[in-house]
Amino acid sequence: MVMVMNDVTKKLNSLGEDILNDIEKGKNPGMEIPIRSLSNIIYNKKTKQLTLGNKKLKRSFFNVAHSKKFMQTLLVAAFCKSLVKENIHTSIRDMYYNLKRTFPGSKENTFDQQSESDPIIVDLEVMLNVLREQLRLTTDRKGIVAGNVVIRDRGDLIDWSKLGSGGWSIPSTVEEVEFKKVDADFVLVIEKNAGFERLHEDKFWKKHNCILIGTGGQAARGARLLIQRLSSEFGLPVYVFTDGDPYGWYIYSVIKSGSMSLAHVSDRISTPNAKFIGLTITDIFKFNLKKCTIKAREVDIKRAGELLKYEWFQKPEWQKEINLMIEKGVKAEIEALSHRGLKFMSQTYLPEKIKNKEFLP
Amino acid sequence: MVMVMNDVTKKLNSLGEDILNDIEKGKNPGMEIPIRSLSNIIYNKKTKQLTLGNKKLKRSFFNVAHSKKFMQTLLVAAFCKSLVKENIHTSIRDMYYNLKRTFPGSKENTFDQQSESDPIIVDLEVMLNVLREQLRLTTDRKGIVAGNVVIRDRGDLIDWSKLGSGGWSIPSTVEEVEFKKVDADFVLVIEKNAGFERLHEDKFWKKHNCILIGTGGQAARGARLLIQRLSSEFGLPVYVFTDGDPYGWYIYSVIKSGSMSLAHVSDRISTPNAKFIGLTITDIFKFNLKKCTIKAREVDIKRAGELLKYEWFQKPEWQKEINLMIEKGVKAEIEALSHRGLKFMSQTYLPEKIKNKEFLP
Repeated sequence: MVMVMNDVTKKLNSLGEDILNDIEKGKNPGMEIPIRSLSNIIYNKKTKQLTLGNKKLKRSFFNVAHSKKFMQTLLVAAFCKSLVKENIHTSIRDMYYNLKRTFPGSKENTFDQQSESDPIIVDLEVMLNVLREQLRLTTDRKGIVAGNVVIRDRGDLIDWSKLGSGGWSIPSTVEEVEFKKVDADFVLVIEKNAGFERLHEDKFWKKHNCILIGTGGQAARGARLLIQRLSSEFGLPVYVFTDGDPYGWYIYSVIKSGSMSLAHVSDRISTPNAKFIGLTITDIFKFNLKKCTIKAREVDIKRAGELLKYEWFQKPEWQKEINLMIEKGVKAEIEALSHRGLKFMSQTYLPEKIKNKEFLP
Repeated sequence: MVMVMNDVTKKLNSLGEDILNDIEKGKNPGMEIPIRSLSNIIYNKKTKQLTLGNKKLKRSFFNVAHSKKFMQTLLVAAFCKSLVKENIHTSIRDMYYNLKRTFPGSKENTFDQQSESDPIIVDLEVMLNVLREQLRLTTDRKGIVAGNVVIRDRGDLIDWSKLGSGGWSIPSTVEEVEFKKVDADFVLVIEKNAGFERLHEDKFWKKHNCILIGTGGQAARGARLLIQRLSSEFGLPVYVFTDGDPYGWYIYSVIKSGSMSLAHVSDRISTPNAKFIGLTITDIFKFNLKKCTIKAREVDIKRAGELLKYEWFQKPEWQKEINLMIEKGVKAEIEALSHRGLKFMSQTYLPEKIKNKEFLP
């Protein structure tokens, strides 16, 4: 990652210095924070990413509606500065408990609930243009990886090709990982852990010289950062493999273009070059999996209708697939491929799709 | 693990041979399956484990109520035999899709839903006295481990002390893991991933010469098997660290005594010698964490009342704790310890509890 820890400290320091300057000049201390509400979220067609627009709000100390949040922002900023200084990481929940205090002589708490401290972290991310992970705040880890890659992490050399059936558990702070060797032609991201295990057991990553990443459902920030780094630093194509339903397709679009709730970090954690390898509804019919489909529920159809309208799904291939799903009223899981044999996915389906470049954009 | 794969094949073969014998003798082919309903689940005070009683049901072919299930049982058994033979693993969902067929000339499916094939697997586990994992069926993986341990898994040598911030992701089939070196005084099992990361970063396992296992909530079968193996094969004490609430305490009891839904495998995947290290409600008051408690909801109080009645919570120490929770109407998370400082858990709370042997039974 380009940003070193010192940059974060610098940014945190300059936030504090600006406030001090305001105070010394007798001004109302304040800060400007880009707005994250829907009205300021834009899909950038050029970068293929969700991003924030230019609208900002001002948070100042001498404003009854702002002063508590102002205090909270500085508390969190100071906390993060000490994390960087002490070189430790912690979860956002631990931070909440650590900062929860009652002001002496009052009944007023710094924070009453974690739902008050969480958005402050995002405010700092946006305001300082840093990632939560660089502020040393961890998110829940999820995801596994295997492949011909050697990394250095916290002093250990780790070979992703020599981790047995287990794979390497992706931590939430992968921006500190140093790549020592990356020998792969592409990255295959798979939504389902069971699918990861099947491909891993068949040594798919070895046979096809790729890096295999299992996200276990919606990709965690750590997994998304890792995919982004492998794509941008090593120019590896990224193929995403999810269930054939609106939920799976959205998982793909989040990896590719970011999500609305994290639009402010899309440019740093999404992978615009990612392609979708499957499952499509077309696959279901092509590979004769009709017996293994699931009837789409009302909520699936509704979600499909929403995807149809998203700007980043305005591509003829996707419009066709989503409409086909609505028309047929079915969806299917990755596991449905097992109907054609347990090794069908690793020996036929994926290799053929990759060979024929049958991807959705 | 004591059982080699050949034993599983032998058991599957003998199931088939018994059926063949019945047919050759002109008898109604049948099998006997231990009953798994509540009425046949017993808490064995001596082994401290939930287990099945002696009640059995007979499933036979010439019985309209049984014949479909009889057919399904043999289908699943044959499937598992081929998994063992081909030396591959698969998920129970993949199995369902693989076995789903329509009988030629009829509209009858082998299985209509996965809820039909799942219980058949358990039937086989009980009937043959094998684990699902030995039948080569995987469950969802969850859990991470770090420590001074070297294992061999699928041909790779893996050093749990050299995996950076990531740790080793525990697969669902750990009975094939071969321990090459185990240098530890105890096993610390922690419910929360965030807690695992904090302790891992502070190198708790190095400083205290232990194996650190994060279960990420309710422990998956793979994690429970791993804990059981470390306890039984290396005589390591096991300390379980969960949130201070009925849900956390139940996680502990499942690791220690097994669960009702898996009572038939308790003797093989639970760890009766496990002890509970925290959080207790007493801790909350002792360590002045009152500000970081959460008001117990009605459902918490109800669940606490249920725990009070379970045979395996009939110990004065537990009765006192659970009653204290109900009386005070509060619960607390592991993260609440961060109120006393981010390193309080790793430098004070856990070391002191271990030193003073402050465990609940």
